[in-house]
Amino acid sequence: MTYRAPVKQIRFILDHVVPFAEVAATDRFAEASPDMVEAILTEAGRMSSEVLAPLNRAGDEHPARLENGVVRSSPGFDRGFQAIAEGGWIGLSADPEHGGAGLPQALNMAVGEMMAGACLALQLNPLLTQGQIEALEHHASDEMKAQYLPKLIGGAWNGTMNLTEPGAGSDVGALKTRAEPNGDGSFSITGQKIFITWGDSDVTENTCHAVLARLPDGVQGTKGISLFMVPKYLPDADGNPTEPNGVKVVSLEHKLGIHGSPTCVMAYENAKGWLIGNENGGMAAMFTMMNNARLAVGVQGVGVGEAALQQAAAYAAEREQFGPIIRHADVRRMLATSRAEIFAARAICLSCATALDMARATGDRDWAARAALLTPIAKAYGTDVGCRVADTAVQVHGGMGYIEETGIAQYLRDVRITPIYEGTNGIQAMDLVGRKMMDGGTAAQALLDEIMDDARAHSQMDGTRVEAVWKAAQTLSEATNRLVERGMNDRNAGAVPYLSAFARVLGAYHHLRAAAAGNEDDKRLAWIYVDRVLPRYRAELIEVEAGFDDLQAISDSALGLA
Amino acid sequence: MTYRAPVKQIRFILDHVVPFAEVAATDRFAEASPDMVEAILTEAGRMSSEVLAPLNRAGDEHPARLENGVVRSSPGFDRGFQAIAEGGWIGLSADPEHGGAGLPQALNMAVGEMMAGACLALQLNPLLTQGQIEALEHHASDEMKAQYLPKLIGGAWNGTMNLTEPGAGSDVGALKTRAEPNGDGSFSITGQKIFITWGDSDVTENTCHAVLARLPDGVQGTKGISLFMVPKYLPDADGNPTEPNGVKVVSLEHKLGIHGSPTCVMAYENAKGWLIGNENGGMAAMFTMMNNARLAVGVQGVGVGEAALQQAAAYAAEREQFGPIIRHADVRRMLATSRAEIFAARAICLSCATALDMARATGDRDWAARAALLTPIAKAYGTDVGCRVADTAVQVHGGMGYIEETGIAQYLRDVRITPIYEGTNGIQAMDLVGRKMMDGGTAAQALLDEIMDDARAHSQMDGTRVEAVWKAAQTLSEATNRLVERGMNDRNAGAVPYLSAFARVLGAYHHLRAAAAGNEDDKRLAWIYVDRVLPRYRAELIEVEAGFDDLQAISDSALGLA
Repeated sequence: MTYRAPVKQIRFILDHVVPFAEVAATDRFAEASPDMVEAILTEAGRMSSEVLAPLNRAGDEHPARLENGVVRSSPGFDRGFQAIAEGGWIGLSADPEHGGAGLPQALNMAVGEMMAGACLALQLNPLLTQGQIEALEHHASDEMKAQYLPKLIGGAWNGTMNLTEPGAGSDVGALKTRAEPNGDGSFSITGQKIFITWGDSDVTENTCHAVLARLPDGVQGTKGISLFMVPKYLPDADGNPTEPNGVKVVSLEHKLGIHGSPTCVMAYENAKGWLIGNENGGMAAMFTMMNNARLAVGVQGVGVGEAALQQAAAYAAEREQFGPIIRHADVRRMLATSRAEIFAARAICLSCATALDMARATGDRDWAARAALLTPIAKAYGTDVGCRVADTAVQVHGGMGYIEETGIAQYLRDVRITPIYEGTNGIQAMDLVGRKMMDGGTAAQALLDEIMDDARAHSQMDGTRVEAVWKAAQTLSEATNRLVERGMNDRNAGAVPYLSAFARVLGAYHHLRAAAAGNEDDKRLAWIYVDRVLPRYRAELIEVEAGFDDLQAISDSALGLA
Repeated sequence: MTYRAPVKQIRFILDHVVPFAEVAATDRFAEASPDMVEAILTEAGRMSSEVLAPLNRAGDEHPARLENGVVRSSPGFDRGFQAIAEGGWIGLSADPEHGGAGLPQALNMAVGEMMAGACLALQLNPLLTQGQIEALEHHASDEMKAQYLPKLIGGAWNGTMNLTEPGAGSDVGALKTRAEPNGDGSFSITGQKIFITWGDSDVTENTCHAVLARLPDGVQGTKGISLFMVPKYLPDADGNPTEPNGVKVVSLEHKLGIHGSPTCVMAYENAKGWLIGNENGGMAAMFTMMNNARLAVGVQGVGVGEAALQQAAAYAAEREQFGPIIRHADVRRMLATSRAEIFAARAICLSCATALDMARATGDRDWAARAALLTPIAKAYGTDVGCRVADTAVQVHGGMGYIEETGIAQYLRDVRITPIYEGTNGIQAMDLVGRKMMDGGTAAQALLDEIMDDARAHSQMDGTRVEAVWKAAQTLSEATNRLVERGMNDRNAGAVPYLSAFARVLGAYHHLRAAAAGNEDDKRLAWIYVDRVLPRYRAELIEVEAGFDDLQAISDSALGLA
């Protein structure tokens, strides 16, 4: 089975479903002409299908290894990484001042989806580097930018995010890593970090760690943490890596999936580091890294889901049991609803990316609020859909789906990390109903109003279905009004179903736009979503209403605790 | 983490939720007194927790191997199997004439759940043997019964089911294995079988294969296939295994999970076999084996789900992020809805088992129809819940859930086979809307009428919730009336959501009964199910209405085919 990058489908969404034309009309992104977009998607698609996809099984079967403290990558990953670096894909959205192409995030995410669909384990390497580039662009001194950005953007070096510690996961403020000033502007970093993706790499000549740590006068909790740049090899005056720093990989995790991505336990012992941004300003810098990474992880879900669905459809067309199973009603239902969900998740991710681009290009706060609102939805729905579709793809394969050599189970194992990392999907949902509703729901209501207005404009296509979408948006709007009045525990208890209902409304809305602009199949797929996927929002909103009381009242022992 | 067999929870369901008292009141099952039930559940629970559960990780980490054509089991599995055999658990429901205990299937399934929760890969061995015992009891000659049943029931030998071939999975009638009469009452069997669970074993002294094959005059399709007994070693006149038969294990599959269960490719070459039942009567014998196995697989889902949920609850109680995460609204929601679903799935399985027992004890056709109706629901819902709960349990663990050493990912990998084998859950759903509705929906409507009558009797507990359950049953009854009028493709397109909606109604009904008989926590859990899990039936019934037309109309290329 070969992965075929969905260039046409992505192009259709950019052209007809999300406001990418508005992005390309701004001064900042004037270069993103239709020809440029076509060239970029085609070339990234070609590399993903032809260079990266053939590495995917080898990554699974020959995991990254730790040899004498050094990570040895899976076979061929060095070649794959070179193709990514030489294609200029790492710095696609980075500042042109340091070698980036300065193109919209919408394109960067589209390219990310294709690379992730082809080989998730390898794509994680540039994904993390991009997060670090973003943090440096926003927070680092000019000197640090000049020193690190060209290396990271060109792919000579790669970047990591070091947040988690054994006792500090979702509660990042509980971290214990310390940073002592050396008196020369540098700091000595000591502590242990876990779950560090690509924490060491033999596909680059240096690995740059962005490490959260607490200064001696840093207060407890998140307000007392700072972000530091800690390179594996200390650069000399010319910026060339020389002597090793006080950082080492202690061990690699043995994981359910993404075996080709080394997940490291890192030990810092008086490692030399330099402050990124302000003292005690680590959380702001971390959020810069994490916000784009969150969207990028949603996109990973879409990419792996797409790859799994392609393989399932190909198998169903070829497998004969009373005729080809792709003609069987239940198999067709599985494939069609999966396809409709992949479309919806991709459109949500790209609409989030275009909002980010508009915010950056125009400085408009409403666009920034829109992007902030959509980020947790894109991350959680994209990864939930990725898992759901990969799971369905296994089921379509019947007994063959359970055999590792078939390759479909790898997608399920690989994609299962995406609802967990960069903030679990529960954390995303709490971000949506908490931080993203601190405006009293203004950004959410503005989006739902737009959807209701725009939906009405399409009613000549199919009055009943358009009405169903409108009604869903209206019901969600009312639920949002009630939600913002509730206490935090009630909100959090309803957060996950609320986010899911929101995603269904967004997905149905994007399908409406596709139905209006596309061919008969686009219309059929849209109605499949409206008829079969959307209606579940009602039960989800019923669950939102239920709040926390019943969950609080039941005893721990009734939940199954000894 | 140690698995604790849920003896109390099972006992509660038998005593208060399903009509087990009626079973124990029959002459046939008079031995199943409360004391006997308590003794059996306690002893099987002890063995499961203390002997089998400690083997579960070793089975995953040290898969069964093929050495010179012989299967070598995972470390300790021989000891585990001996405990199962010596406890008398294999023949718990088998005919006392050949050494069985003749007790109800409800108890057998309860024991099966605990063994599966403790170590799924090993429990598969006796599970398949039980299916074969059942087939022999119903179809074999007295001579064959006398020769094989004592060995199988005592655990000296084990039994397998050989149905699937590379081109014959769901379409079993397409099989190519041939059986030639030898003229002495025996037959020569030649062909290849795949996905044969425990197709060879070093924990018993002989392995008895029940093999589907076609006689020379057998017509094409399912009507021309017969079932044969093909032992690995041919028994001598005293029934002792002597010379090897013409059957060998070609290879073992490398699977997503249940690594401790050898899944074999089997080659038969002029292997000597004897007819089980009538010539060309293979399907009837196969269905006898499969029906109980289907229920038993639903029970496996419940068992593994229970084990995963116990581990997730224990982790959540201990893991501190802003206080123990078991107190967090979203984590509590995940645990509570999982617990409510496990209860519902267990009750559905045990209600199916009691219906089987009543049918057997009384010969009443209505009970037989009830059992037949509930079997596909128990299989599909039990295994779907098992997967859903194991998946949620991984999510509760956050990043630790993705690390294999945590052990929780194994449950997810192991349980993922259960919606696939013994007929995929899609096949189960088609069985429900097809074969099980050939009575025009009579059995389904009888059950729904009972639920509506009984629900009304509980309205003093909580009028609104009881009304919600009643309303759901009523809506499902109407949907059933419409469903039986539709053509096969429309039915099949709606089969999976229809089955799921049916399971929600049954689950809610069993929760009602638990709420009426139990303590405050039972009531709380019941309302959590009614408020949060039941409401999704509406969207599912909307999907049932959608039928096949939209799925048929969309092109294959729109589904993602190249």
